[in-house]
Amino acid sequence: MSGIAQRRDTRWWGWGSAGRRLTLDPAALSALRAELGDLSPWDRPGSIDAVELPPPQPLPAAIAELVGKEHVLDGHEDRVRHASGSSFTDLARLRSGELADAPDAVVVPADGAQIAALLEVCAREGVAVVPFGGGTSVVGGVEPLRGVHARLLSLDLARLREVAVDRVSLTARLGAGLRGAEAEAELRRQGLTLGHFPQSFEFATVGGFAATRSAGQASSGYGRFDELVTTVRLLAPAGELATLEMPHSAAGPSLRELAIGSEGVLGVIPEVGVRLRPAPASERYEAWIAESWEAGRGIVRRLAQEEALPDLIRLSDERETRYSLAFSGPGGAAGAILDGYLRLRRRAGGCLVIVGIEGGRESVARRRAQIAQLLRAGGAVYLGRSGGRAWKRTRYEGPYLRDTLLDAGVLVETLETAHTWSRLAELYESVAAALRGTLEEAGAPPIVLCHLSHAYADGASLYFTVLARRLPREEVEQWQAAKAAACEAIVAAGGTISHHHGVGLDHAPYMAAEVGELGLATLRAIKERLDPAGILNPGKLLG
Amino acid sequence: MSGIAQRRDTRWWGWGSAGRRLTLDPAALSALRAELGDLSPWDRPGSIDAVELPPPQPLPAAIAELVGKEHVLDGHEDRVRHASGSSFTDLARLRSGELADAPDAVVVPADGAQIAALLEVCAREGVAVVPFGGGTSVVGGVEPLRGVHARLLSLDLARLREVAVDRVSLTARLGAGLRGAEAEAELRRQGLTLGHFPQSFEFATVGGFAATRSAGQASSGYGRFDELVTTVRLLAPAGELATLEMPHSAAGPSLRELAIGSEGVLGVIPEVGVRLRPAPASERYEAWIAESWEAGRGIVRRLAQEEALPDLIRLSDERETRYSLAFSGPGGAAGAILDGYLRLRRRAGGCLVIVGIEGGRESVARRRAQIAQLLRAGGAVYLGRSGGRAWKRTRYEGPYLRDTLLDAGVLVETLETAHTWSRLAELYESVAAALRGTLEEAGAPPIVLCHLSHAYADGASLYFTVLARRLPREEVEQWQAAKAAACEAIVAAGGTISHHHGVGLDHAPYMAAEVGELGLATLRAIKERLDPAGILNPGKLLG
Repeated sequence: MSGIAQRRDTRWWGWGSAGRRLTLDPAALSALRAELGDLSPWDRPGSIDAVELPPPQPLPAAIAELVGKEHVLDGHEDRVRHASGSSFTDLARLRSGELADAPDAVVVPADGAQIAALLEVCAREGVAVVPFGGGTSVVGGVEPLRGVHARLLSLDLARLREVAVDRVSLTARLGAGLRGAEAEAELRRQGLTLGHFPQSFEFATVGGFAATRSAGQASSGYGRFDELVTTVRLLAPAGELATLEMPHSAAGPSLRELAIGSEGVLGVIPEVGVRLRPAPASERYEAWIAESWEAGRGIVRRLAQEEALPDLIRLSDERETRYSLAFSGPGGAAGAILDGYLRLRRRAGGCLVIVGIEGGRESVARRRAQIAQLLRAGGAVYLGRSGGRAWKRTRYEGPYLRDTLLDAGVLVETLETAHTWSRLAELYESVAAALRGTLEEAGAPPIVLCHLSHAYADGASLYFTVLARRLPREEVEQWQAAKAAACEAIVAAGGTISHHHGVGLDHAPYMAAEVGELGLATLRAIKERLDPAGILNPGKLLG
Repeated sequence: MSGIAQRRDTRWWGWGSAGRRLTLDPAALSALRAELGDLSPWDRPGSIDAVELPPPQPLPAAIAELVGKEHVLDGHEDRVRHASGSSFTDLARLRSGELADAPDAVVVPADGAQIAALLEVCAREGVAVVPFGGGTSVVGGVEPLRGVHARLLSLDLARLREVAVDRVSLTARLGAGLRGAEAEAELRRQGLTLGHFPQSFEFATVGGFAATRSAGQASSGYGRFDELVTTVRLLAPAGELATLEMPHSAAGPSLRELAIGSEGVLGVIPEVGVRLRPAPASERYEAWIAESWEAGRGIVRRLAQEEALPDLIRLSDERETRYSLAFSGPGGAAGAILDGYLRLRRRAGGCLVIVGIEGGRESVARRRAQIAQLLRAGGAVYLGRSGGRAWKRTRYEGPYLRDTLLDAGVLVETLETAHTWSRLAELYESVAAALRGTLEEAGAPPIVLCHLSHAYADGASLYFTVLARRLPREEVEQWQAAKAAACEAIVAAGGTISHHHGVGLDHAPYMAAEVGELGLATLRAIKERLDPAGILNPGKLLG
């Protein structure tokens, strides 16, 4: 049970490894206080045992018979650890020390056959099933909602850890329970890479990547996870849905694209087939500064439309650029260089651009030359490699920093969307205004930061970070009001409700706007066919 | 009614422009006779008026009221022209002078609103609807099957001809009725390209590309049509399903990928949003010869896995290479060069490779250098540009040549599949053996040619061409037996039943093997939700 053992080693009240903690530069904290107002430090329960949960309901005995009773975990700790994802709302509730609900038990099947048998039992007995990968959902994807069912189990996929590489086709079959970092480490040992590096990379799982349409930070180069998947299995109460393994098929609507993004609502994904690449021999990460948010967007658009995108590109708006500087602290290389540059130019503005290029040595050099030329043509100035390296070194640290900020009393959360280039500026303005307006009205004027990432020839995603003074004991409502306003602004601008976080519980109310009433009805008809008893992840995705 | 007028200008009994006819070099014909045996020339009805059809059923008056009676065409010619696609079976039936069925009328709506209203009438009145684009389906996609309905109309999308370009996002909204060549010509006038060049490019339509998951010859570079689509509308009897226009969304299963490939069974596609590229400033098409089919596959695989694919790549097996030579005739540049090469090397074997590279001048030169290096590293020999140019000049001629061969009494048809690299050789052998075995047993030993195209890092498609002596008055059964054996071989090898021709009627029996029983049941549940009366393209895709 390596997977479960690992999970017990993570921080139950926040992000990641229990032993790791990011401290905040006192100057950065002062700057935040100056802007956000007085912050009241936010306590946490002293231990996981102090978290209050409803008592568990006993599950049908057939379940323990199926998987072995050592794989049915109904102790307090496992129930708490499977009761939440990693959204601000989840963390705020954990800090409150009281969870409205938790799974009655965590069940850890050995393989697809056990999952199929489990689903049969649960459908017959009316037990809700929440598939659980890394528990890193930031949209309420693993919230233990029972729907019409009296009992609920968390189906932890931690034991599905297969790695089977086909070196001729450069593909692999990966077990759903592998964390991104585990899968990548095994592939690197074989000289290969999946190239999928979302911020949750260290803890999120392969099955979760598929179920939520994850996009890694280097998706411009390696492709989003949905582009990497060649084949997928979906185990539903009605049976198994499996696509053939092949590079492409024109045989009708894509069932693979129906399984991907199904968020545990249509079935459980035990394994996926993915495309691999040779591990890059070389990489170059560097920082640039664009004259403005608009000029920066123009550069990224040109890179995308001239098919010259680096593997990773990330353009911060003016505000995020200034805060990157502040948060990188006195030792932060990007900050120091940027600071020097800004003083040199006697300019307050400018937008940080992080560029990452990976591949063969020659290809990296050649692509870098073309990318640098287009950046310069767009008025950007080169800041050097140390800023890029610093970004890369800290690429998975955001959620650790969030825990530190929460401790300090800061409400901090992110949200993201995407649109075509011709409507991206409008989307940016309206979402930022909605966030600011709502939080100001609540008496907690926020800092709203944004970066553009995941660029395409036809558009890009926008990733917002919001910081505000928390309103003690009203944190959840405070954020939910801001988030609702942002979602409504996204819908009004015709953007997508999510580029890569998924739908879960939080975005479900906006699915009708996203896919239309008939689209939603169609998804529900599919759900009805695959899961007639409605046991799978009630309340998520389809509302 | 420019679209319909154009359609009346095409060859009713065969392919393409009525005024265009390919002649076959007498030497090539002799070579065919020597290999296939005695051929009996195949007559055609003297005129379209001589084709026998069942009398039309009158359609509900509401239909003419909706679209205007001048857009309801129930004359003999239009009914014949909309009774068939372009498969061998279709052409054999047309040559017989007797069609078992035809649409009762061809209805040509002005826009999406008229289509929506039409579907409502047809669902209420029980009129089957076969959406019709270019009529180029080679899998029975437009066969006028009535299902349980007494009446059937062909819904010709010829009047949906919008071209609305968004230059900032490099996208366009294209009306479903535009032929590939029409859309491309309009985009080229604006300095842009869609880059979608299937063999049917001159006559197939944008709506058909989306509905059937078309892949163009240059799909390695520009992407398949499903990769070019940003957004799609699907008009179903139950309402409209429209996806947002955005570069990507993680909001659940992809409804766009459900509409694409729906083959007129789930709804009618009035328009699609697509990605564009700047029209290429430069291009280079050239021919190479690989040492063997195996060596050639190795080269293409390496090009794909090192992300060095040209925009177009096409590797013929030994047999297709020799026939390319024969059919290109005494004036055929590729043939002459290849012939010279083979004599020089005193070799009978070798496999033709066509490489096409498009883009900016520098980029073409750079990519060409890398591609040439990998071709040479794999043992291939450069044959020069004239062979590549000749291929490009004649890239849409295959179906014209087929008509000429049919006249001469040759059964000629193509089929295609795809698989991962590790199983491609097995797939190749078993499909070729199935085709040869079945036709030999029928007393018509065939010539089976194959090329590999549409290469991916994880696999490629195989495209087979079959030539055999026709068995007079049994041509349809003769081909159907061979095709069934090939399909069974594909299914047994785990390949896809279609990489880019689609499913239609001919592949519907293999859908359960392709997507599984539950996959098929899921697609049927979607159909039931969107088209409860079952009026849309009965019998296709889902059987």
